[in-house]
Amino acid sequence: VEQSVLEQNVTAVQPVLARRAARLAATPPAAESHEAIPFDSGHAFPGVLPDLTAAAQAALTAFRAETLQYGVRPGLPEMREFIASYMNADGAKVTADEILVVNGAKHGLDLLCRLLLDEGDSIVVTAPTYFTSIPIFRSFGVEFVEIGQDDEGMSVAELEDALRRLAAAGRKPPKFIYNVPDYHNPTAVTMTRGRREALLEVAAAHGIPVIEDSPYRKVRFEGVLEPSLKALDRRNGVYLLGTFSKLVAPGLRIGWVAAPRDVVARLVQLKSDGGTCPLTQRIILEFARAGGLERHIEKVQSVYRAHRDRMVAALNSELPEVKTTYPHGGYYVWLEFPQNVDTDALAKRAADFGATMIPGSKFFAGAGPASSKTPSAPKHFARLAYSHASPDEIEEGVKRIASALRSMRA
Amino acid sequence: VEQSVLEQNVTAVQPVLARRAARLAATPPAAESHEAIPFDSGHAFPGVLPDLTAAAQAALTAFRAETLQYGVRPGLPEMREFIASYMNADGAKVTADEILVVNGAKHGLDLLCRLLLDEGDSIVVTAPTYFTSIPIFRSFGVEFVEIGQDDEGMSVAELEDALRRLAAAGRKPPKFIYNVPDYHNPTAVTMTRGRREALLEVAAAHGIPVIEDSPYRKVRFEGVLEPSLKALDRRNGVYLLGTFSKLVAPGLRIGWVAAPRDVVARLVQLKSDGGTCPLTQRIILEFARAGGLERHIEKVQSVYRAHRDRMVAALNSELPEVKTTYPHGGYYVWLEFPQNVDTDALAKRAADFGATMIPGSKFFAGAGPASSKTPSAPKHFARLAYSHASPDEIEEGVKRIASALRSMRA
Repeated sequence: VEQSVLEQNVTAVQPVLARRAARLAATPPAAESHEAIPFDSGHAFPGVLPDLTAAAQAALTAFRAETLQYGVRPGLPEMREFIASYMNADGAKVTADEILVVNGAKHGLDLLCRLLLDEGDSIVVTAPTYFTSIPIFRSFGVEFVEIGQDDEGMSVAELEDALRRLAAAGRKPPKFIYNVPDYHNPTAVTMTRGRREALLEVAAAHGIPVIEDSPYRKVRFEGVLEPSLKALDRRNGVYLLGTFSKLVAPGLRIGWVAAPRDVVARLVQLKSDGGTCPLTQRIILEFARAGGLERHIEKVQSVYRAHRDRMVAALNSELPEVKTTYPHGGYYVWLEFPQNVDTDALAKRAADFGATMIPGSKFFAGAGPASSKTPSAPKHFARLAYSHASPDEIEEGVKRIASALRSMRA
Repeated sequence: VEQSVLEQNVTAVQPVLARRAARLAATPPAAESHEAIPFDSGHAFPGVLPDLTAAAQAALTAFRAETLQYGVRPGLPEMREFIASYMNADGAKVTADEILVVNGAKHGLDLLCRLLLDEGDSIVVTAPTYFTSIPIFRSFGVEFVEIGQDDEGMSVAELEDALRRLAAAGRKPPKFIYNVPDYHNPTAVTMTRGRREALLEVAAAHGIPVIEDSPYRKVRFEGVLEPSLKALDRRNGVYLLGTFSKLVAPGLRIGWVAAPRDVVARLVQLKSDGGTCPLTQRIILEFARAGGLERHIEKVQSVYRAHRDRMVAALNSELPEVKTTYPHGGYYVWLEFPQNVDTDALAKRAADFGATMIPGSKFFAGAGPASSKTPSAPKHFARLAYSHASPDEIEEGVKRIASALRSMRA
């Protein structure tokens, strides 16, 4: 493990916290007394966290011999069945043995990387892409093939071009295509059905698996629900990452990989953790059995819809010069500032004013000091999460960002 | 990832189950109606699993905003403090920032391997060594330097010889020395203090870190408690793996790595799992705060002491030709059969007779079909776990193994 990779990870994973701390130490801001309003994290709103006491009580009494013992490595059989049914109710056609229960979706992504990647491989990601996945990918020494997006999602024409150019240059094809097709992180774009079908066709033609990262699919406020890539997949070429973090609570650390049987069998061998926690698996099963999950998903949708509404309204009134993709689901809004705004500087200034955000430059996998081959990332984007703060905090936080921006122009 | 590595893992991890299934299908045994008595796993005795309902109730109400939210990656600050105090009460001198909370000790071992190992490195293990660690090590493509043991633990003289020979041959030194110094798995041997000090001296002289795997230290029935390697370490060269699996319950999946600050900082960067479950961390903290942990450790000791007594008595009366190291703690007894007994065959036969065991050949990391350089593993050892079965089952299970052995001689 190279020191440089680790250092990149430090930089990539906690940039706002680190810079905020440094900044606050260096120049005491006027707004220091504010508790910072958190637009930087995908944490859950504390008010939406469910009451799991009854489920835990059952899990720790009737199921004690199961929940406190080592669990089997692929996951509790009932949990695998439950996840398969949950996915099949959403158009997929998977069986329990195509499900691997993991310690959160990031763990599933890490396992897939361990299975599929060798040093020097390339992978396809969107530009921008999910921020936290970048250090995971980088730790495997991959090169990024970055593909742009429009309001229909990943540009499949650009992907085709890139694959053709790689082949023409005698390069190996990328090992997988990674995407968040529903309420994309960070852009909130949802792929259209046509784009999904085109993506699967190109992936199949080149023999490249697709990793469909799907944490937000049920965090849906309105609009059409397109079929998942997994549901559209006819060639066993899609590996879906799912999670209960957004449906029940992040702290339970239960996610899953849905993949062909032989892939699951190989991932199980790489999963040397003594089995994913059977207690939290059973808590989820008991919560669902009692009807809690279905009710909670409705609550999640209505709470975050209100957060989204408040943030969009605040952005319209406080930052009218900013362009966004209207989020029909998920946790995030992606801000496009005028070209002359440097959001790296703005994020620091906003932290001084008491609101945290992540500058857009952190979401471009191939750009920045880590790579000398590509130009630096565009500077005029930023991601705001509306999940964690309360509606009133959201309004106040957007005002603080607007004040920070004005103070930079002054 | 090579198919062969995966296949080895399959073979290594569930050999008894797989072979048992095959065997039962092929030749219906007389004892098929018995539920198999499990001497093959390090599972907890179901009767020793504690009542965690009060701790969970508190964790899910007063601490809900902590336990259901994403946790910080190094572990809950209170948990890191608690573990540091727990270790310091046992002679260590560690601070909270030298503790990384992980998803069970195997997860910690996997992270250490990811940090320290490159393909083609070598590592030092005892012969025999902890069975489940072997596929983890193999998945990193390492070579094994196997060192023998006597009743004082790992032979440090043999280790010194091996290191000298490697140096003389111009080979890189091993990347680490892995050992279970307390109630060794599988042999039940505990290293003497002199041997511990000698090991640390040799490791320091060669600049090789020591991984001290310490799951059983408190599962102690009688006898001297030697200082841990971590407590004896003056050079920051020991990385200790701890776990609550044996102290509270395996299903909680909470372990830790105690290591120098810079090592912990690097491991945190490799831990891309969204933080170890804060709910189960808080359940353990609440259980301990209410005095439950201390009481439970006493219960664990008295329950497994009774299991050990019953197994030793049964072995003495049913299999007097077998030699063992008397276990003063831990979960296992290591059987040395007469040279002409093949325990690979005996384990299959015993499964037919309704008792599962792990043949000794599985505990020799460098031996067997995976390696052509070394002779095959000795065939006349076996490991029996007395943790999982009840005392009556233990007696019956040993009788079944004795019957299986007699049936092979008949």
